[in-house]
Amino acid sequence: MKGVNLKKLAKELNVSVSTVSRALSDSYEISAETKEKVLNLAKKLNYQPNPYATSLRKQKSKTIAVIIPEIANNFFALAINGIEEIAQEKGYHVLIYLTHENHQKETAIVRQLSGRVDGILMSMATETNDISHLTELKDKNIPIVFFDRICERISTVKVVTDDFESGYEATEHLIKQGCKKIAYLSVSLNLSIDQRRMEGYLKALKDYNVPLEQSQIVSCSNNDDENYLTLKKLLESDGRPDGIFASIERLAIATYTVCQETGLSIPQDVKVVGFSNLQTAPLLNPPLTTITQPAFQIGKEAATALFGALKRNAADLQDEKITLRSQLIERKSTAR
Amino acid sequence: MKGVNLKKLAKELNVSVSTVSRALSDSYEISAETKEKVLNLAKKLNYQPNPYATSLRKQKSKTIAVIIPEIANNFFALAINGIEEIAQEKGYHVLIYLTHENHQKETAIVRQLSGRVDGILMSMATETNDISHLTELKDKNIPIVFFDRICERISTVKVVTDDFESGYEATEHLIKQGCKKIAYLSVSLNLSIDQRRMEGYLKALKDYNVPLEQSQIVSCSNNDDENYLTLKKLLESDGRPDGIFASIERLAIATYTVCQETGLSIPQDVKVVGFSNLQTAPLLNPPLTTITQPAFQIGKEAATALFGALKRNAADLQDEKITLRSQLIERKSTAR
Repeated sequence: MKGVNLKKLAKELNVSVSTVSRALSDSYEISAETKEKVLNLAKKLNYQPNPYATSLRKQKSKTIAVIIPEIANNFFALAINGIEEIAQEKGYHVLIYLTHENHQKETAIVRQLSGRVDGILMSMATETNDISHLTELKDKNIPIVFFDRICERISTVKVVTDDFESGYEATEHLIKQGCKKIAYLSVSLNLSIDQRRMEGYLKALKDYNVPLEQSQIVSCSNNDDENYLTLKKLLESDGRPDGIFASIERLAIATYTVCQETGLSIPQDVKVVGFSNLQTAPLLNPPLTTITQPAFQIGKEAATALFGALKRNAADLQDEKITLRSQLIERKSTAR
Repeated sequence: MKGVNLKKLAKELNVSVSTVSRALSDSYEISAETKEKVLNLAKKLNYQPNPYATSLRKQKSKTIAVIIPEIANNFFALAINGIEEIAQEKGYHVLIYLTHENHQKETAIVRQLSGRVDGILMSMATETNDISHLTELKDKNIPIVFFDRICERISTVKVVTDDFESGYEATEHLIKQGCKKIAYLSVSLNLSIDQRRMEGYLKALKDYNVPLEQSQIVSCSNNDDENYLTLKKLLESDGRPDGIFASIERLAIATYTVCQETGLSIPQDVKVVGFSNLQTAPLLNPPLTTITQPAFQIGKEAATALFGALKRNAADLQDEKITLRSQLIERKSTAR
């Protein structure tokens, strides 16, 4: 962060710092001759305005924060691509923070953003009762927009997909393909997306008179090793399901791994559908039936809403839910 | 970026801004009574120091830039995870910039980082002759560390994998599995990683007396549609290869897609090996033999080198190449 600053230019030219500053901003108070001298020296020494000095003066950082649970995940990688496209267009810088699904980390990250960013795009780690780090943002005049994993209790723009409808559709599809006993793999019922997907599952079972078995609602986690054991137990049990609906990509992959290792055949022994943005879904053995979220578009919509607020200098966004449709893509993992 | 600043605190307490500032930094010049008054008000109004003011004062932004070609790519996503782990440990913020493989974009990004970041981690878009945006960094006192796609001509730390040896090993493996005609899928010979991998390929062919056919060095790109057509032409030609070595993950996936659609069987008709950090490699049809890079570790090493330089306040890093080993993981796509 060292280099040529206003002070150095002023010293070289033997004029005041404010003269240099006004010359560079083309002030009418400065003579053409002085302006030329300053500009020539600035060019010669490769002077560039300090962005933080500019930020302080304008009270704008031209930076946004994107806070997400993880990055080695196709949904979030695609969403960042969408966010970044809009940010580059608007000349904004993007700080990326990973919470690793940890609420404390999320709280600490949000609390040290004050003054550093003009706005926040966020997908929550978990939805706990303690959202003081988010309610505080209003006092700090920092607008926030949620995407995918939203916080219902904060009044702002929330960009989501139709989780209930997609959950219903995935389950209905398994029923129509002949499944009688369908397991729902949940990642965390602290997340509203998980709840909504499960509600869709429950409604479809009810509408089609498929009896609900509590043992088929399976609590998984973000730990791959734990999930492997949980699913192994499920698939080796007497009450093994003949259909599996994975609420997130990670759990669909874990199901495939367990089936491969226990010799269970998809779709003959068990049919599988999962929420997923996996590029290799059509190339898996067998190709995976997915609910595919419009991840790139979700990122773009969220960023557009945030930059709209920044342009209007509005810290408060009107409470609004923007719902983009996901798509069921049938492949062999659910074939009859 | 609005909110409570020193000025507001000073006004409320009817003291000068410098008194507030000195009270907050616990200066001996300020009475205990005043300090208490200032601290109480600061707490009450939820005052937080402006990070940009702090940056200007300390000439440190506590921020690094990570510049990469793309993010929806398992290698870069894992590398960012490694970088971020070290950055969080050191209390640094991470700005992420995507070049989308575009040299102009890369140049523009680097040129506007001055004063905004303390250091840069970079994987290059393409390696052209024009590296003035990188040579300029020395004058600006901004240290840079390269990872994976490095710039040989800049003297600094470069973290890479053993591309030549891995290229050799992948090709040798195909030869030992019975391949007589092996294609090398190149993404861009402007990239030294691509050159090194191809050199390994050429050396293995030579060592095993497999004749080199120029038509088997196939120029692909970062455009999936173009690659699809290129590979379709290759695999439908009379001179079809019986082995394919994909220099990057994207090209291995494209090969699978083309084989699936043209009815070619892997590994019977053509064996495939590719550089890849794909989590689903073992679940593909058939499971893909990969050269797997230690992506997370590469990110960690690069970040560690950069933070070392920042700690020593050194803009110049000693020229050093850190080579981490990649691993050949045999799966069914290269079975005899």
